[in-house]
This record gives sequence, C-alpha cells and structure tokens, in this order.
Amino acid sequence: MSTTVPLRQIHLAGFLIAGPVVHSHAIWRHPETVGDFRDPEYYVRAVKAMERGLFDFAFFADRLGVSDTASGSRDLAFSQGSQDSARLDPVPVLSYLIAHTTHIGLGATRSTTYFEPAHVARTFGTMDILSKGRIAWNVVTSMNDSEARIFGKEAHLDHAVRYDRADEFVEAALALWASWDSDALLLDRERGAFADPRKIHPVKYNGKWIKVDGPLNIPRGPQQRPVIIQAGSSGRGRQFGGRWADAIFTIQTDLEAAVANRNDIRDAAAAQGRDPAAVKVLTAIMPFIADSKEDATRRRDAHNALASADLGIATLSSQLNVDFSVYPLDTPLSDLIGDPRLPGPARDKLRIMRERTLGEVARNWSASVRVPQWTGTGEEIADLMQQWFEAGGCDGFVISPAYMPGSFDEFTDRVIPVLQARGLYRRAYTGSTLRDHLGLAVPA
Amino acid sequence: MSTTVPLRQIHLAGFLIAGPVVHSHAIWRHPETVGDFRDPEYYVRAVKAMERGLFDFAFFADRLGVSDTASGSRDLAFSQGSQDSARLDPVPVLSYLIAHTTHIGLGATRSTTYFEPAHVARTFGTMDILSKGRIAWNVVTSMNDSEARIFGKEAHLDHAVRYDRADEFVEAALALWASWDSDALLLDRERGAFADPRKIHPVKYNGKWIKVDGPLNIPRGPQQRPVIIQAGSSGRGRQFGGRWADAIFTIQTDLEAAVANRNDIRDAAAAQGRDPAAVKVLTAIMPFIADSKEDATRRRDAHNALASADLGIATLSSQLNVDFSVYPLDTPLSDLIGDPRLPGPARDKLRIMRERTLGEVARNWSASVRVPQWTGTGEEIADLMQQWFEAGGCDGFVISPAYMPGSFDEFTDRVIPVLQARGLYRRAYTGSTLRDHLGLAVPA
Repeated sequence: MSTTVPLRQIHLAGFLIAGPVVHSHAIWRHPETVGDFRDPEYYVRAVKAMERGLFDFAFFADRLGVSDTASGSRDLAFSQGSQDSARLDPVPVLSYLIAHTTHIGLGATRSTTYFEPAHVARTFGTMDILSKGRIAWNVVTSMNDSEARIFGKEAHLDHAVRYDRADEFVEAALALWASWDSDALLLDRERGAFADPRKIHPVKYNGKWIKVDGPLNIPRGPQQRPVIIQAGSSGRGRQFGGRWADAIFTIQTDLEAAVANRNDIRDAAAAQGRDPAAVKVLTAIMPFIADSKEDATRRRDAHNALASADLGIATLSSQLNVDFSVYPLDTPLSDLIGDPRLPGPARDKLRIMRERTLGEVARNWSASVRVPQWTGTGEEIADLMQQWFEAGGCDGFVISPAYMPGSFDEFTDRVIPVLQARGLYRRAYTGSTLRDHLGLAVPA
Repeated sequence: MSTTVPLRQIHLAGFLIAGPVVHSHAIWRHPETVGDFRDPEYYVRAVKAMERGLFDFAFFADRLGVSDTASGSRDLAFSQGSQDSARLDPVPVLSYLIAHTTHIGLGATRSTTYFEPAHVARTFGTMDILSKGRIAWNVVTSMNDSEARIFGKEAHLDHAVRYDRADEFVEAALALWASWDSDALLLDRERGAFADPRKIHPVKYNGKWIKVDGPLNIPRGPQQRPVIIQAGSSGRGRQFGGRWADAIFTIQTDLEAAVANRNDIRDAAAAQGRDPAAVKVLTAIMPFIADSKEDATRRRDAHNALASADLGIATLSSQLNVDFSVYPLDTPLSDLIGDPRLPGPARDKLRIMRERTLGEVARNWSASVRVPQWTGTGEEIADLMQQWFEAGGCDGFVISPAYMPGSFDEFTDRVIPVLQARGLYRRAYTGSTLRDHLGLAVPA
C-alpha cells in the first residue's frame, strides 16, 4: 500500500498567531483552551498535534503594531483582545519549536516594509540550518499605519510601492541565500581549510528601494533557500505571489470562488514563466468536529457566542486600515461600498459580502475573519475537503483553530485517518525537509 | 552552610559566537571540539555544561557582515575561517537554547545601528517571556564597513554619531518595554476582559535619530526589561555603558589595568547617578586546565599552534576597520601607532601592545583576540580568579572557550568546586531570573 503514491495528495498547514487570537477572537476565552499565549508550551502542544497528524507545516502570521484605526483608540482592542492586541515575535517562538519537533515544517512572517533583506536572509537561513531544512518565510508587506508609526514613519507606504519594494527585497534575499555554493563549506580540520572562497560569491544588488553589497555570513541551507509563503489577494499581490511563492495562503468562502482564485494564481505563476504546479494553493478552514453534525454545529455556535461584534470592528478596521466604528452596525454593506471614503482594496475585500450588514460582517470577522467554519463528523469534514480538493479549489488546507490545542488534536484524530483511508493524504513523512513535504523541486 | 551568603560572590558568563570561531580561531579545528557550528546541539552541549556549573548566563557576540578590510578581499577570511567568516543569527540559536535550559541566563547581540528599537524590544521582550525572565541584550553599535554595505549604506556611521543614536535607541526600547504596566494583562476568560487599557501607555519618542509612536504589542516581561550587556571600551562607549549597562564585558591583559578599568566604569556609572554596584564588570579569560601547570601549558601551546598569524590579521583588520595586511609582520607596533593613517580608536586599542611586533599581535589575535590565556590546575585557575576578584579587578569572569564544549565542562568540573569551597561562588541557583542571578534590583 504505502509504495503506491497517488498523483496528487492534500497538503496541510496549521495557522497560528503568537497571541491570544488567531482568526477566532474567542480562542483565549474558550473553555477548552489550555494555557495562554505567553507560555511556549502553548505552541508546542498545538504543533505536536499537527506533527502527529503529519501536517506539512505550521506557520505564524504577524502584525507589528496595535492599531488605533477604529475610533482613533486602542481601548477596545486591549479591553476585549483584538487580533493585534498582543503578538509575540514569531521568530523566537518558531526557533523554540525547532527544538521540540523533528519533521513538521515551520513558518514565520517577516515584513518586507519594516525589515531589511540581510536581516531576513540571515534569520531564516539560520533557522533553516538549525531545523535541517524545515523553514518557511511568510512574506507580507504590512497593512496599517500603526505599524508605520512604531517604526517612526508617518503613514504606511502606498500599496503598489510596497509591492515594488517587496519584489526587490525578495530578489536581494534570494541572492544572499545563493551567495555560498552548496559545497563551499569545507570544514577540513586537518588542513585548516574552512571554506573554498571561489565558491562564495559577492552580492551586489542595486535596486530603487533595496541596496545590498556583500555575501551572506552563513552557508547555504539544507533547502537551498527557505520555502516562501504569501497571502496577497489583490491583483498586485497575486502577481507578486505568482512570481515568488511556493505556497499561497487564501481565504475563500465558497467552492466556486476558490476554483476561480486558484486558477488566477496558477495563471499568474504561468505568466511569470513558472510551472503552476509549483505553487501550492492552501485555503483556510476552521473545523468544528463532533460525533454528529448537530453537536458540531452546537460547538460552533457556542464558540461564536464568545466573539463580539465590537471586536470584529476593531480587527476589521485594523486589517483594512479604515475606521468602521463610524458606521452604525445595521448599515448595509452595499451602502458602504459606495462610500468614496473607502479605499479600493477595502472595497474589493468587502464586495463579496455586499448582501450583509456591517454588524453581520463584524460578527463574522470576530468569529473567524471570513475563514469558513465547517461543521460535522470527521467523515463529513473529509467529504468537504475531498470535494474542494478534487474540484480544483485548492491543493490543500490551512487549519485555523477555534481553541488551543484541541482543534488540532481533534482534526488529527478524526479527519486525518479518513483522508488516509481514501488515499488523499500521506501515511508517513517521506522526506526530511519542508520542500520534500510540499513536493517542491529544489530551486536551481 | 548554605544559609550564609557572603557579601560578594563571583559572577560567571560563557562567551559564544554562533560560528566556527569565538576568540580562539582554533576552535573549529581543535581535535577535542565536538560537532560544528551548524548543529544547534553544538551550543546546547556548551550551555548545559555552563548551567551545570551554575553560570549566570551565556551570551552570543555577533557581527553582521564578512569584512574585506584586510587586502580588500575576503579570500583569507573564508579559506582559513576568520572570526566573521560565518555567523548564524544568534536570536534563533538563543531561542532554541531556551527550550533546552531552565535556569541559566541567555544573551544575544543586536546592533543599534542596523535594527530598529521596535524590533529589539519585541524580539528580546518575547524571548524574556518565553524563557520566564532569563534574557539579556548585548548592545553593540557595530564596527566595520562590510556591515554597513550589506544594509545598503556606503560606510559605517561615525563613532560618536553611532553612540548618539544608540542612546536614543536604548531610551526608546526601554519606553516600549515599559508601555504595559506589570498588571495590565487580565486574561479574565469569564468576563472577556483581556487587558486593562488604562494600564497600557502610548510611547511617543521623538529623537534626532529615533522616532517611535505606539505601545509595544507584547505585555511586560518577567524581568520588567531584559538585562543589558555592553562592551564599549572607548571613552564614549564607557559613558554609554555607565548609563545603561547591567553587566559590562571587558578584556584586560593584567590586573592593574583591570582594576583601573573597573574603577573607570564605576565612575562612569556614578556620574550618571547610578549605584556603581549595579554595574557588574566581567572580564574575559581563556582557561587551559590540566592536572599540572606544565600539562596545561602544553595544551595551550598545542591550541595556539592551530591559529595562524594571517587569520589574526584578517580579524584584527575587521575589528579595527583598518587594513593591517599592508604592513610587514615584523613591523614594531610602536611604529604603526605613529602612522597617521591609523584612526584614533584603533590606536587606543593597540597602544597597550606597543612593545610587540605586528606579527606577535596577529598571532595573539588569532589565538585569543587579546583574551588572557590562563594555564594551571583547577586550584591555580581559582587562585588567579580569586586574586583578580578580591583586588577589585572585576565582579566576575567571562569564560571564552578554546574548544567546544570541553572548555566549559573542564571549567565546571575543576574550577567551580574550588570556588564553591572558598565561599566565592553559589552552590545553587537561588532565583529564577537572570536579574536574580546577577543580584540586580528590579528596575523602577
């Protein structure tokens, strides 16, 4: 059995934030959540549950500041716990997890707007070496003005400019990761030959936004370079992802939209001269699993009752960099979309929810930030996953937890065996690097 | 016995670099060194030996680029392995070590010239939370042009300007670490009360070099703020250390100079209105320990024979940002000090070695970068330590390894019991934080 590898299998990632909230604003309050975000074992338990379930990787989203976009105040964000009320730096958390895991891939976010390529190349190159090839970099350009201000800037860079800088940033980081040939390091103790200098190449990158001169001071890592994850959904973001990403994280609320989105991403990759199969599209779900559909639905409803509309407004405002607290909750979204004060990217994101009121959207945002909540038995969740996967809606899924670590334990215990029995999922890790798990070729 | 705490006891730190070389350029070649710098267990073994010896902390020095100062080329640095030929990012290494240790403090270097205060505040605040209060930040302003160039700058900032920026940087980082009161985080699941917004304070720092607006997005850590380590030896560097440092790392080649240096540091602290006892001065030694003085000396000589003068020139040139490869090795240093091409800080560092030739200095630099090599039995090393400590030459020592992890195991096995028997060193960790180990008050 185990020698028969099906042509295409589901890939799985676990979505995390090193804070009290992930997509669910109820996580930290949920009666089944064990411990809190300050304890590294809080993350170890979750990632060990994923590793037991043979997930490809876990990754940490991030944001750098606490937004006061909603009503010009952070009071509600802090008093109730918004998505960006508190976030530990994901890099130390990820490095701690390297010590507690052996196979699962591990990803963390670094912003191309507020870091430098030499920082990212060195930090992620180091983690890739320490983990023996299990690291991913989730590339973001950052979102809101609170992030700009903590770095001493007045306002966030314009959307298009951010991506122009990000293109240069990734090019420069890739050049740094390639500066040592794979066989440059000799470590010949007898001869005292440390490395072959002919195999370490200077990097001279001279862009409009990014300038780098020098080889990196660390050798080539086990994956040649870390895996690159990305999540941009705008046209420019998708072009960027099609150019650079190995895996793309997306939130799609129905299958039809998921198929269209995956096709768009594959087209964007092909337009960059890449094999579309080299870009894995992973779509987010928040599963509630029980012995019956009814029990699972009750568990979802109990979860959602812990997530307030106010909190949704705070996080929605932060994410779209627009103050939604000025509108009454019963405002139809179709009215809002026509408001000239609303910037284009926010309008694009909200358009698919035009049938709803702002209050409905806010409650949805608080419960799951648009991530579809799927309810059912392990079999029923597996059915839906199989349907989306086989219809071309995705190459795999990102599991977003409703409580910690239970959501991951339940998924591993109840859904994984069903997917395995159907030949849709691995029965063991067959490689040692994240690139192996994702079935990605080693970059040239 | 254990209830009698002497007035003053020796503090101990272990000096590390996440690369093939520490002060000894022979480490990676040394026949007793186990493993190599790419394996995280290489550091775990060393730090576990220190923790067994009840060290206050281990810390990682760092440099961000590979210098080509010597002869405009990196070939020798790479072919033989200079001090900055390869260095992993110390932050992921430190975070990995958090998972493998329980009491020992852990420090890493971040440069105030090439990072932002919000990065450092978040990264080190996170590590302090994950480690339950065991983290130190080693503040450096960076040294040479190769570091500037990898960040797209033509040349390094001027010495005085770097420290002006560093003063602002530390002020801003301290303000960020103080932005959440200790009791701001509530985590009251029943009421859904995450934090008390009245106890989280905006930070508005508006300096000449550094601007920061926003509270940090992480709560107050167990130590209130990480311990601050520093090593500047210039007048401006000492002023900076006297103002901010909890512990100062220094290299002194004789006791008289050590006493004078410690008095200068204590004066600098007093001049800033601080209690001089709140600044622990730790001086570096590289011990070679054996059953007899003769055996220890033989071990030192065998070690030093692995360190070439060429390599010393490469690292010396990088550290002082001066190309020493243009001078013949038999040039007397007294001639060099008179060369007008030599910048002031380099002249200051070399003046104490004016009796030697450049070749002698280069071999010394390759063997130990000026760190005094002490040879003897455990008793004899303890004698010297006691002499320096009691004469006011230091508040403790930084142990720099000659091979890994053996130097630390030998020190722990042979010297620690002697110091303990003399009442000069702890018999157990009595507190849980690094601040406890160092006997430092909790900052206001």
